[in-house]
Amino acid sequence: MIAELVSVGTELLLGNIVNTNARYLSEQCAALGIHVYYQVTVGDNEERLTQVIRTALDRSQLVILTGGLGPTEDDLTREAAARALGLRLTEDSHTRERIEAYFRNSIHKTISPNNWKQALVIEGAEVLDNDNGTAPGLFVHTGNGKHVILLPGPPNELIPMFRTQVLPILSGLCGGKGTLYSYMVKLCGIGESMAETMIRDLIDSQINPTIATYAKSGEVDIRVTAFAQDEEEGRRLTLPVVEELKKRFGDHIYTLREEETLEAHVIGLLQELGFTVSMAESCTGGLLCGRLVNVPGASDVLKSAFVTYANEAKERLGVRHDTLVTYGAVSAQTAEEMAEAAAKAAGADAAVSVTGIAGPDGGTKEKPVGTVYLACWVRGTVSVKHFLFHGNRAKVRELSVQYALDLLRRCLLEQKRTL
Amino acid sequence: MIAELVSVGTELLLGNIVNTNARYLSEQCAALGIHVYYQVTVGDNEERLTQVIRTALDRSQLVILTGGLGPTEDDLTREAAARALGLRLTEDSHTRERIEAYFRNSIHKTISPNNWKQALVIEGAEVLDNDNGTAPGLFVHTGNGKHVILLPGPPNELIPMFRTQVLPILSGLCGGKGTLYSYMVKLCGIGESMAETMIRDLIDSQINPTIATYAKSGEVDIRVTAFAQDEEEGRRLTLPVVEELKKRFGDHIYTLREEETLEAHVIGLLQELGFTVSMAESCTGGLLCGRLVNVPGASDVLKSAFVTYANEAKERLGVRHDTLVTYGAVSAQTAEEMAEAAAKAAGADAAVSVTGIAGPDGGTKEKPVGTVYLACWVRGTVSVKHFLFHGNRAKVRELSVQYALDLLRRCLLEQKRTL
Repeated sequence: MIAELVSVGTELLLGNIVNTNARYLSEQCAALGIHVYYQVTVGDNEERLTQVIRTALDRSQLVILTGGLGPTEDDLTREAAARALGLRLTEDSHTRERIEAYFRNSIHKTISPNNWKQALVIEGAEVLDNDNGTAPGLFVHTGNGKHVILLPGPPNELIPMFRTQVLPILSGLCGGKGTLYSYMVKLCGIGESMAETMIRDLIDSQINPTIATYAKSGEVDIRVTAFAQDEEEGRRLTLPVVEELKKRFGDHIYTLREEETLEAHVIGLLQELGFTVSMAESCTGGLLCGRLVNVPGASDVLKSAFVTYANEAKERLGVRHDTLVTYGAVSAQTAEEMAEAAAKAAGADAAVSVTGIAGPDGGTKEKPVGTVYLACWVRGTVSVKHFLFHGNRAKVRELSVQYALDLLRRCLLEQKRTL
Repeated sequence: MIAELVSVGTELLLGNIVNTNARYLSEQCAALGIHVYYQVTVGDNEERLTQVIRTALDRSQLVILTGGLGPTEDDLTREAAARALGLRLTEDSHTRERIEAYFRNSIHKTISPNNWKQALVIEGAEVLDNDNGTAPGLFVHTGNGKHVILLPGPPNELIPMFRTQVLPILSGLCGGKGTLYSYMVKLCGIGESMAETMIRDLIDSQINPTIATYAKSGEVDIRVTAFAQDEEEGRRLTLPVVEELKKRFGDHIYTLREEETLEAHVIGLLQELGFTVSMAESCTGGLLCGRLVNVPGASDVLKSAFVTYANEAKERLGVRHDTLVTYGAVSAQTAEEMAEAAAKAAGADAAVSVTGIAGPDGGTKEKPVGTVYLACWVRGTVSVKHFLFHGNRAKVRELSVQYALDLLRRCLLEQKRTL
């Protein structure tokens, strides 16, 4: 099946945003064995948009449109697609009810009249409910065997809709030709280029399964994907590679569960041990704690935490004045005392601390911008780590959070092993 | 001038990489007053690539091609462009010498034969030297007044080449025809569709200047752009629209400075007033404080803050046991006491608190998921707000942070006005 992606939005043509949707959809299509031959971006102009959809329908079997489904007059994708397909728009009562319900539960109590436009659907289309916004997606099967999908532009609406509603339909359309079976091996505390170097030989010799790495700040995900007749064969093909990765990366691997984030994994370890945790954050200013609280149920293990940005706040928490004077706020000693003080103040079994220089100012020759000390206190035992991160303020803080989670994970693993 | 960007590369169609070149070039074109109407991505396939270039030449005056200029057999952009233009490829001796010199200075001492392919140029083209690789760029002016530019795909080759060699030529082509002058009006505490409804008439009647809205969670940016002979005329055209927006949106507008974030604006207000601030966060778990600490220099105004996730932590900070029992942790009364207690514990002039139900669990009929109370205490005066946010856990927390910053901003503005 040949596919074409059409992204709609003047903000893309003005370069205000990067087109990450095209990348996401391309990746998903590739995994399904669908060949994306063209990606086209066009603005909110009905004439040009209709023409682009007509061209796409001429040369591709599957056309996925994203964006331009909003409530404003600029949003013309529904209208243009209907025109290109020669179909009418009709109001969908189910969607109208969903929009009403959305606004009832929202802070914007009044529905502006243009919101009703979003209840219009192309006749005969399958309606894809939007759980994160008001614009529904649409799936149209044309008389001549072509498929047109309209999806909302915001990634937080598009991605869940694609995963839960579009993928099953597309898999069905591509069905009977085998299946993709994949494992995600998730690593932390290692950079992408180091991880790649360690498995260069595996990457170079890959045919089936294939191995692909995806890097985030301080995290690397390795996807092992086999094309197989069935799940059984898929498992047989992928497992030896996963075992090899386990051997090479050891404790860098925190999970094989694709949907498990590092913070969810750490919360899980705490729950398993029956431990509570606290934090004392300086340069990260609450980001570390904020990330743990991403996880539903974090309240089981996290009762309170502290942002101790100034020296006086560190002292009030319990860091000794002498330590701050002798070693400075950014030091292994201060980090250790911060962690211990946070645990004691919160009455927690464990605590992590972060103290560092995120920049742009505050660096010295001995402690340049990017210098970060992390400490983890667990029931009387304290571990401390020193880092020199490269990047701007946001990057240094992001990496600090990442490595603090990793440090906590490793300390909890040790506890688990001694049990 | 109407432009079209053509990105060449199968890695884009497979979703292996994000197309940041299209964004960069779109932004540059917009700044020059060149209208990008289409962005197209196509793979390394000569047939399809040639067809895409022909279509682009039909409907656009300027076609910028990126990628596919490398030495391998997959790299076909030069060949396809020559074919679409009906022009021949000839070897450029200057480029051949540059390739020889490049390899002399490189770690790869031997030149593989296919490298000479990169010395082939379209007849009549201006050659753009590549200071960061072997593939030169090409600038072709066709007989019928069209312009075709071929640029290498790697951003570290493309961007320097564009800045130093392409920009001057394009500026010349657009020369004498004026400049773009724009204002960004940044709003918070209002949704996009409400904001658009309030200026529907202005959007509908826009010609020059144009008005465009850009939405983020709880924020809307409105860009007013005039095409003018010079800055003077640009200001004269845009200012009346900006004044009208000020009249309509009042205190929703927090800044006219494009690069100023809401958190930077709030830090600026605190610095102006000479105030310090603290926080007590429950469901946001540190995200609010983390966002303020994004701003370099936040340490001037923020000394310490508290994550009080559990009731016991709220009590330890200073919330009365009775209040928690009588009204519950998620209530206006608790929010007020949290803010006051945070200010007192930190010795700060102001403090903000957040307490709410981010979900997915914990909702009741009276207090459903998304219920959030925000309070702001400033030197003895406390304001409290009640919200019902819609969305998943991450969305509720993100909106809580956004509206907490807005509440703090409004309270500080009041202080400023009474001074």
